[in-house]
Amino acid sequence: MSKPILTINFSRLQRNIQTLGNIGQAEDRGIHRMAFSEADWAARQWFSEQINAAGLDLYEDGAANLHGRLDWDGQRPSVMIGSHLDTVPGGGPLDGALGVLVGLEVLTTIAEAQIPLHYPLEVISFSDEEGRFGGLFGSQAIAGQLTPALIHAARDLEGITLRDAMGHWGLDANAALFARRAPESIHAYLELHIEQGPVLDRKGISVGVVDAITGLFKWEVRLLGAANHAGTTPMDMRVDAFQGLAEFAGAINRILEEHGGPYSRATIGRVELKPGAANTVPGCVTFSLDVRDTDSATLTALADAFRLTLSALARRRKLMFEFEVLAAIPPRRCDAGIAQLISETADALAIEHLRLPSGAAHDAQIMAGIARTGMIFVPSIEGRSHSPAEWTAWEDIERGANLLLQVTLGLAAEPARH
Amino acid sequence: MSKPILTINFSRLQRNIQTLGNIGQAEDRGIHRMAFSEADWAARQWFSEQINAAGLDLYEDGAANLHGRLDWDGQRPSVMIGSHLDTVPGGGPLDGALGVLVGLEVLTTIAEAQIPLHYPLEVISFSDEEGRFGGLFGSQAIAGQLTPALIHAARDLEGITLRDAMGHWGLDANAALFARRAPESIHAYLELHIEQGPVLDRKGISVGVVDAITGLFKWEVRLLGAANHAGTTPMDMRVDAFQGLAEFAGAINRILEEHGGPYSRATIGRVELKPGAANTVPGCVTFSLDVRDTDSATLTALADAFRLTLSALARRRKLMFEFEVLAAIPPRRCDAGIAQLISETADALAIEHLRLPSGAAHDAQIMAGIARTGMIFVPSIEGRSHSPAEWTAWEDIERGANLLLQVTLGLAAEPARH
Repeated sequence: MSKPILTINFSRLQRNIQTLGNIGQAEDRGIHRMAFSEADWAARQWFSEQINAAGLDLYEDGAANLHGRLDWDGQRPSVMIGSHLDTVPGGGPLDGALGVLVGLEVLTTIAEAQIPLHYPLEVISFSDEEGRFGGLFGSQAIAGQLTPALIHAARDLEGITLRDAMGHWGLDANAALFARRAPESIHAYLELHIEQGPVLDRKGISVGVVDAITGLFKWEVRLLGAANHAGTTPMDMRVDAFQGLAEFAGAINRILEEHGGPYSRATIGRVELKPGAANTVPGCVTFSLDVRDTDSATLTALADAFRLTLSALARRRKLMFEFEVLAAIPPRRCDAGIAQLISETADALAIEHLRLPSGAAHDAQIMAGIARTGMIFVPSIEGRSHSPAEWTAWEDIERGANLLLQVTLGLAAEPARH
Repeated sequence: MSKPILTINFSRLQRNIQTLGNIGQAEDRGIHRMAFSEADWAARQWFSEQINAAGLDLYEDGAANLHGRLDWDGQRPSVMIGSHLDTVPGGGPLDGALGVLVGLEVLTTIAEAQIPLHYPLEVISFSDEEGRFGGLFGSQAIAGQLTPALIHAARDLEGITLRDAMGHWGLDANAALFARRAPESIHAYLELHIEQGPVLDRKGISVGVVDAITGLFKWEVRLLGAANHAGTTPMDMRVDAFQGLAEFAGAINRILEEHGGPYSRATIGRVELKPGAANTVPGCVTFSLDVRDTDSATLTALADAFRLTLSALARRRKLMFEFEVLAAIPPRRCDAGIAQLISETADALAIEHLRLPSGAAHDAQIMAGIARTGMIFVPSIEGRSHSPAEWTAWEDIERGANLLLQVTLGLAAEPARH
C-alpha cells in the first residue's frame, strides 16, 4: 500500500451523519427513533433514497431489513456490512447509524471507483436492533432464529404488538420467517460500531479490533423477608430483605475475582423495595443481576457462584429466595482471520488499534452464528452510550471508515472459497 | 386491692371495637380512614354519638380534636386519655382506635359507677395522627406547636391542602391555633396503644410500660456516580452509586454496635436507582435512612457516625454525596412517677408487664412536652402494624383496659398539686 490508496468521501459521510441525526431528534432529549416508529420510518425512507442515489440495488427483505447491493447476482456469496438505524428512546446519533452510514459510504466509494469485485457487497440496516420488540430482530431473521411463536408474542412496553406496528406500515411481521439467508450466501459479515464503553477513549486509541462479543445472563432475583415498623422492630428481630441484597452486592467483586476473568462484568442496575417506605423495614426486594463474559465456561462458573452466594446468605438470613432467568445469550468469537486482516490493515494505514471484546450486544453477535464476522470499534467519548451526549471524534470516524473500506476490499478481493 | 375492684364493661368495648372497625373498611384491603376523609368523618360522627350516649360532655376544639369530658368545670386540670381515630391507608382496626375506645370505656365505667373525682377526666381523639397532612396535628395543636405557616403549607400526597380538606367539613384549619391548652390545665396524659412491634408478643407478656418514646432522624441521602453501560464498562472504570449504598448498608450494624444502645434502630426502607435499567451501571441512588433511639446524645453520636461513614466511602469511591434532613424528632421520657404507678397497678392486678421504649411516634410524644405522660402498650400479634392483619388478643385488650381504668382512678384520686 505504498501507492495512493482509495479513501472514502469524508465530507459526504459527515453530511449523512448530520442529516440522519436530525431524524427523530426531540429537542434536547435525544433521538427517539424506535423500531417502526414514525421517525424510524422516516429514517428508512431517507436511507432507501441514499441507496438509490448511490446507484446500489435496494432490497427489503421480509423482516424489513433494508439492503443496498453492489454487483449482486444472487449467485455468489456477499460481503455484508451491517448495523441498525433504530435507536433507544433518547439515544445518540451514532449507535447503529454510524455503522450503516459507513457501510453505505464504503459501497458508494467502491461503486464510484468502479473496482471489480470477486464478491458482491451489501450494506444492511437491520430492523429493531435496540429492542422495542425484543431486539436483534432483523439479524435473527437473517440467521433463521425466529419462529412464528416469537413473532406472535413480540410486543413493546406499551403492549403494542410487533404485528400491529409493522402492519401500520403495510408490512406482514410473519414474512420475517422468509428473510432467512443460507449461511453459504454470506462470504463475511462486517460491522463498525461505537465502543459504547470507555476503554479506547481512556487509552487514546482510534480503533478497536473486536475479538469476541460477550455473552450474558440476566436474572431477576427476589429476596423475601418481613416488612416491619422501622421504629418498633429491634434489629435482631428483623428479616430485612434489603440487607440481604446489600450483602450480596458486596460479594460481587469477590465472586468476579474468584470465578471471573479480565472481561467479566456484573451489575445490579435495577432495585425495587417493598413496601418502599422510609419507616418500614423492607420485606421484599427485587433486583436485576446482569453478568457478562466472553467465555461460556466462565459464565457458567459465575452463574454457579452467584447462585451459591445468594442461597447461602438467604438461608442464613432466613430470607426466601427466588430468581428468574430473563436472558441468557452465549458469547461469540469473531473470526480470527478477519480480526487479523483488520489488525494488519490498520497497521498498514498507520492507525493505532487495540484488541478488545464487545461488552454490548450487536447484530454481529447473531451474524457470527452463520458467517465469518469481523467488528471494528471507534471510541465513545467518555464511554457515553444510549445518551444524547454520545459522540466520537470526527478523525476517529474517518479512520474507522477508511479501515472498513480497505478491509472490505481485502475480503471482496479474496479468491472464492465456495 | 383485696376487695372486688371496678372493671370495665368488656363486651361493650368489644362491640365498639367491632363497630368502629367497619367504618372505612375496604373489603380485604384494610381500613382507609385517613384524616378528614369521608370515613374519618363518619368515625368522628359515630364517636361523638358514643360520647353523648355515655353522658359525657362533647367538645370539639379548633384542631377538630374531639373531647369527651366527665366532671369538667374549666377550673381543675384534667386527666386526659387520648389517641386517634384516623388510620393509614390500608390500616388495621386497633392502631389509635383502641386507645380512644379504651379511654371512652374507662370514662363510661367511672361515670356509671359515679365515682367522685379530684380531677375531671377527658377522653380525646386527636386529628391526623397518622400523617395525611404531616401527622400529630391534633396533639401539636394542643401543645401549641403549630404556626400559621405550618397550617398553610400542610397538604397531602395528592396536593389537597389541609385547609381545603377541613373546609370541606365546614372547619377552619386556622382555628387549630386556638386549640392550644395551657400545660397547667392538664394534670396527666395517658395513652394506651398497640405496641406495633414484636417484643411483647415474642415474650408472651400482656402489657408494656413505656418509659421513653424514641426520637429519630430521617435523612434522604443521594450518592452520585456515573451511569454506564453494564457490558462495556470494565469493573475498575465504574463509579457505581449502588455499590456505594451496599457498602454503607453493610456498615449499619457496626455503627449501631459502636455508637448505639440497646434501643437503637437504623433502617434503609426506600431506595431509588437511576437510570434503573438492568443493563446500566446505576449513576445515582437516593435512599432513606431512618435512625431512632431513646437518648438524645446517642442519636447525635449515631448521626455523626453515619455521616462520617458516608463521606469516607463516597470520597474513596469518587461518589458525590449529599443528604437532606427530612425529620428530626427528639426523644421524650415518659413520667417516671406515672410509669411507676402503672407498674405497681399492674402488679396489683397480677398482670405481667415489661418496661420498654416506644419505637413509633405517638401523640403521647407531643403531649409529654407539656404534661406528665404515661403510656401503656398491649401486644401486636407477630408485631404486625399498619396492616389489615394488625391484631391483639382479646384478653390482652381486657387486661390493658382494666389497667388503664385503675391508673386513671389512681391519678384522678391524687391530691391536687396546683
